[in-house]
Amino acid sequence: MITDDAKQRIIQAVDARFDEQLAATAALVGTPSRREHEEPAQDLIESRLQDLGLRVDRWAIDSDGLKAHPGYGPSTVDYTGMTNLVGTHHPSRDNGRSLILNGHIDVVPQGPEDKWSRSPWDAEVCEGWMYGRGAGDMKAGLIANLFAFEAVRRAGYDLTGRVHLQSVVEEECTGNGSLAALLRGYSADAVIISEPEEDALVRANVGVLWFTVRVSGNPTHPREMASGFNAIDAAFDVMQALRSLEQTWNDRKGEHPYFEDLDHPINVNFGEIRGGDWPSSVPAWCELQVRVATYPGTNADEAWTEIEECVTDAGARRSADGGSPSRPTFDTVLTPNGFYADGYVLEPGSDAEELLERTHHDAFGAELTSFTTPGYLDGRVFVNYGGIPTLVYGPVSEDIHGFDERVSIESVRKCTKSMALFIAEWCGIDEG
Amino acid sequence: MITDDAKQRIIQAVDARFDEQLAATAALVGTPSRREHEEPAQDLIESRLQDLGLRVDRWAIDSDGLKAHPGYGPSTVDYTGMTNLVGTHHPSRDNGRSLILNGHIDVVPQGPEDKWSRSPWDAEVCEGWMYGRGAGDMKAGLIANLFAFEAVRRAGYDLTGRVHLQSVVEEECTGNGSLAALLRGYSADAVIISEPEEDALVRANVGVLWFTVRVSGNPTHPREMASGFNAIDAAFDVMQALRSLEQTWNDRKGEHPYFEDLDHPINVNFGEIRGGDWPSSVPAWCELQVRVATYPGTNADEAWTEIEECVTDAGARRSADGGSPSRPTFDTVLTPNGFYADGYVLEPGSDAEELLERTHHDAFGAELTSFTTPGYLDGRVFVNYGGIPTLVYGPVSEDIHGFDERVSIESVRKCTKSMALFIAEWCGIDEG
Repeated sequence: MITDDAKQRIIQAVDARFDEQLAATAALVGTPSRREHEEPAQDLIESRLQDLGLRVDRWAIDSDGLKAHPGYGPSTVDYTGMTNLVGTHHPSRDNGRSLILNGHIDVVPQGPEDKWSRSPWDAEVCEGWMYGRGAGDMKAGLIANLFAFEAVRRAGYDLTGRVHLQSVVEEECTGNGSLAALLRGYSADAVIISEPEEDALVRANVGVLWFTVRVSGNPTHPREMASGFNAIDAAFDVMQALRSLEQTWNDRKGEHPYFEDLDHPINVNFGEIRGGDWPSSVPAWCELQVRVATYPGTNADEAWTEIEECVTDAGARRSADGGSPSRPTFDTVLTPNGFYADGYVLEPGSDAEELLERTHHDAFGAELTSFTTPGYLDGRVFVNYGGIPTLVYGPVSEDIHGFDERVSIESVRKCTKSMALFIAEWCGIDEG
Repeated sequence: MITDDAKQRIIQAVDARFDEQLAATAALVGTPSRREHEEPAQDLIESRLQDLGLRVDRWAIDSDGLKAHPGYGPSTVDYTGMTNLVGTHHPSRDNGRSLILNGHIDVVPQGPEDKWSRSPWDAEVCEGWMYGRGAGDMKAGLIANLFAFEAVRRAGYDLTGRVHLQSVVEEECTGNGSLAALLRGYSADAVIISEPEEDALVRANVGVLWFTVRVSGNPTHPREMASGFNAIDAAFDVMQALRSLEQTWNDRKGEHPYFEDLDHPINVNFGEIRGGDWPSSVPAWCELQVRVATYPGTNADEAWTEIEECVTDAGARRSADGGSPSRPTFDTVLTPNGFYADGYVLEPGSDAEELLERTHHDAFGAELTSFTTPGYLDGRVFVNYGGIPTLVYGPVSEDIHGFDERVSIESVRKCTKSMALFIAEWCGIDEG
C-alpha cells in the first residue's frame, strides 16, 4: 500500500502535465492512422517512448507462428511494413509485479467528412470534449498510458516492477497486433487496456468474426430479367438470413452469464457492400462484408459452422421458393477476412481488479462499476492465450466509429490518475 | 420494285463476302469498346467507311444543345474525347429515298471473366455462334450494316438514294450518341437499327431511366448498433419500395397497347451497389444504381415524380415504423445519371415496314413478326424526335449483357441479306 502522501504527489503530477497530455493526444489525433497507414503515428509514439528512457522494441508483425495461432484473424493486407511498438521499463530494483499498458494505434475510417461538424483530424476541443477520429478509440487512452507511467516518476518515485508500454496495430480488424506482442514474449502479472469504456471495467465481451459473403448471380439484359438472377437481390436474402441468426443467438442470451441483462448483446453488422458493374445488366456478383459477434464459450470455429449453414440455407431456400426474379442457382462463397476471435470473461476476484477498485475510488470518488460490452477487445488475447488478468478500463467517449467521435477531457484526466495510482501500487515504488 | 435477278445478285454478293464480314465482326469484338474507351473500335469503323468511299464525319458528341434537349440523358462522363461516326453516300443520281443505317459501338462491361466459358474478346466461333462481349449487342449488326450496303454495289448497282451509315456511342447508358447524330442534322426517310432482335421487328419499346439513390445512415460502433442507422439496411428498404412500384406498374400493363400480353414488361434492375467503409462500423452511406422502365406515353418527368415519391415514402415509412436498427433519420438523395428516355411505338403501316416484310420473306422464307421489347433502344430518338419510321431489326442472340454472349451466324447472314435487299429497293438502284 502506498501512502496517502504518495497518492497526492502522483495525482498532482498528472494534473501538472495534463495540458501537455492533451497536446500529445491532439498531435496523435492529427496524425491519421487508418489500417496500413499507422507508421507516422507510431513514429510519434516511438519518440515519446525514447523520451521516457525506455528500451524500445519496434517490429513488423508478420512474425512466424502468427498465422498458426488459433487466435489469428485472417488478414487481407501485407504486414511487412506494419509495426508494433513496445517500450519497456526494467526497474533497477525488480521486486514488484509486472504490468502491460496496452493500447492500439489504428483507427477506423472517418466516413464522409462532410457529415462531421468538425474536421476528424483537428482534435478540436469544445465544451469539455476533444473531437476527432480516434480521439476516443483510443488515442486518448494510449497517450494516457504514457502519462500515467510518467506521472509516477515525476512525482519522484522509481517503479520496482517491470512495465511494458504497448502501442499495437490491427485492433480494429483482426486483433493480430496484440497477439503478435504476446507471441513475441511480452507477458506480465496484469494488463490494462485503456479503451473508451465509460470510466468502467469490462467484465466480459463478445467474440467477433469478420467475413465476406460473395454471391454470384446470373447476369442478363434487363429485358429478359426473369431468366437472370440478381446477385444484389440475393445478397439481401443472405442479409435477412443472418438477421434471423442474430435473433436466434440473442434469444439465447439467458444461457450466457454477464449477457442475460443486455438488450441485444449479439449484433450483426453489414459494414460494406459492393456489387454489379452496370445499371442495365442484371448484376453478376455482390460482396457483403459482415461482422458478427459471439458469446464467450462459443469458439470461432463453432460460430463459423453455424454461419456457413445459415448462408448456404438462404441460397437453397430461395432456389426452392422459386421467387421472381430467380432461378435455381444461388452460389455463395464465405471467406473469413479479419477477426476470428473468441470472447472472454474477466473472472471476478483478481488482485488487479481489487486494486483498480481502490485507485478508481481515489481518482473518481465513486465506486468502480463493471459491465459487458458487445464489441471486440484485445483483452481476449491476454485473457484467453496469456492467462493474464486484463483490465479494459478507460474514458467516457461518444460516437466512436461514427461522426464527431469525441472523448471527455475530465474523464481522461481522472482515468489517468486512476491508472497512475494503479501502476505505482501494482509495481511498487521507491523514493527516487 | 427491283427484279428477281437483282435480288439474286445482291443475295449472292452477301454470300460472297460473308467470310470477310465475319472476320470484320470478329476484329470489332476483339477491340473492346466499353464506355469512354470506344475510340479504337471507332477507328476500325472509320477505316471501313473510308474504304467504302463514303464522306466521313467524326465528331465529339459534346455538342451545343445536347443538354437542353428533352431526350438528353444526364451523363456522368466527359464527352470531349468520345466520337460518333457517320459515313454518307451521296448518290450521283439522287432520286430515291434516303436511309439511315444505325448501330452503336459501345458495349457493356463483361463482368467477372472467370464466369465466361470463352474469352469475351476472342470472338470464338463454335457450333454456329460467335461468342464475345458485344458480338450480339451489337457489333454483328453494326458490321452487317456496312456489308449490306456494300453488297448492293458488289452486285453491280449504284444506289440512287442518300445513305448514312452511323456508328454511335452512348447507347448503353444515355442514348445521347444517336441524339447527337440527329441534332447534327442527320435525317432520312427511314432508319434501320440492326440490334439483336431475334430476326424480328420491334413494334414498341419501353422508356428507361437511370438514377442513383444515395442513402445516408448514422454510423456507430456495432457495440451500440441500435443507436445507429445502417445505410445498407436502408437501401434494402428502398429496393423493396421500388419492387413494389414495379409491381404497380406491371399491373397497369392492360392500359398500354402492345404491352398487355407481356408477362412482366416493366423491369426494375438494381445494377450496382456500393456502401460502407469498414465491417465494424455501422455504414454511413449506401449508393444504389437503378434502372427502371416505363411505358410509351409516360414521359420521363412523370415517371421521375412517381419514383421520387416512392423512395421518399420508403424513408418516411421506416422512420414511422421504428424498426430495429433504425432511428428517425432516413436521408435519400435521388440523382438521374443516365437514360432519361421515353419509350416509343412504331406505328404499323409505314412503307418502310411494308418493304421490310417483303425483304425479310425473301431472305428467310418466312413471315416477319413484330414484338414489344422491354429494353431501351435508340429507336426512340428517331421516332420521338425525328418523326422517322424506324425499323429495329436484327439477328438472333443469346445472353447479351451476360456471360457467353453470342450471336447466331446464319441469322446474321440472313439479316444482312434482308437489309441489303431493303437498301436496294428503298433507295433505288441503277445498273453500275
